[in-house]
Amino acid sequence: MKFCQHCAGPITHHVPTGDDKPRYCCLQCDVVFYQNPNNIVGTLPVYGDKVLLCKRAIEPRLGKWTLPAGFMENGETTLAGAIRETAEEAKAIVRAQDCQLYTLFNLPYINQVYWFFLTQLRTPTFAAGEESLEVALFEEHEVPWDELAFAVVRITLQQYFSDRKSALYPVRLFDLEYSPERQLSTHLLSHSHQIINGENR
Amino acid sequence: MKFCQHCAGPITHHVPTGDDKPRYCCLQCDVVFYQNPNNIVGTLPVYGDKVLLCKRAIEPRLGKWTLPAGFMENGETTLAGAIRETAEEAKAIVRAQDCQLYTLFNLPYINQVYWFFLTQLRTPTFAAGEESLEVALFEEHEVPWDELAFAVVRITLQQYFSDRKSALYPVRLFDLEYSPERQLSTHLLSHSHQIINGENR
Repeated sequence: MKFCQHCAGPITHHVPTGDDKPRYCCLQCDVVFYQNPNNIVGTLPVYGDKVLLCKRAIEPRLGKWTLPAGFMENGETTLAGAIRETAEEAKAIVRAQDCQLYTLFNLPYINQVYWFFLTQLRTPTFAAGEESLEVALFEEHEVPWDELAFAVVRITLQQYFSDRKSALYPVRLFDLEYSPERQLSTHLLSHSHQIINGENR
Repeated sequence: MKFCQHCAGPITHHVPTGDDKPRYCCLQCDVVFYQNPNNIVGTLPVYGDKVLLCKRAIEPRLGKWTLPAGFMENGETTLAGAIRETAEEAKAIVRAQDCQLYTLFNLPYINQVYWFFLTQLRTPTFAAGEESLEVALFEEHEVPWDELAFAVVRITLQQYFSDRKSALYPVRLFDLEYSPERQLSTHLLSHSHQIINGENR
């Protein structure tokens, strides 16, 4: 950020008066530009004993499998965004009343928060949207575990197949962190703590 | 937004190629500036049978009572942000292991998502931070219900006093919406739906 979006004045990066963190500030018109984490919203669509995955047609992780998800937009709710992304990427129509909030992830190292809603598809109707090469349903043993695009997708799928045994799907909040050795740690923040270490990105 | 933050070129507001929503775009360097909802994170601190509230020292709603909460910052998790805000506004030290995610709110009309963590204070240690005039503990019948700053605070407190009867505190996601008559509707999005209508802002 080099220029002020209001007055085109020069931007500096410093701690404003009364603040304790460096911000992008315009010295000319005295505006502070805050930068905050983004929400990424999506679904885990289930049909019978199968889950729906999309093969990515875009970077990052082109060719890897993911759940339909994308940036939450201004003016929409997290669920509305998740339903929109499912329609865009998997051409699957999901109804709000068939959805429940399921997994939440903090990714502080990239300033992102992920939200996945668990949803039951009423019919196996789907197709590849513009950002997908292919969309398909997978039984647990068919999931391409080594070809998943993101840790949040793998953890959500693992959690789902585990929860399915009890048919209980409580909301779970995970924190993902990288150690200096670039090892991914997962902290499950729910009533209890659980730490999974040593997973490569 | 009038000028590009990268090149100071003029910004226009139009639908970019391949998109379906108007964005702020720089015609000179071809960058698109996306705008997305912000997360506001806070806690519901409980001590014995009392809840902690802060009297706001800042606008909006100066002089009204609220739960400690503020904008989630880059580089932190939702819980870390909630703990930070509780320290800043109520000078109360909250430990991560004493917290559980409790209420979530979509406020699409102002592009905000609220997160409240329920937490038990170990000691009644608190004081007014810079953004608070006063911090105090309230039993249910002492809560200044007509002097609460925000609907998200009122709904979280009502939910807590209701849940306390069963000692079960599941995560709940609410959507707040305004009708053309400026009436606030609350949709509870959980396993079931529940709609509360006709509440004034």
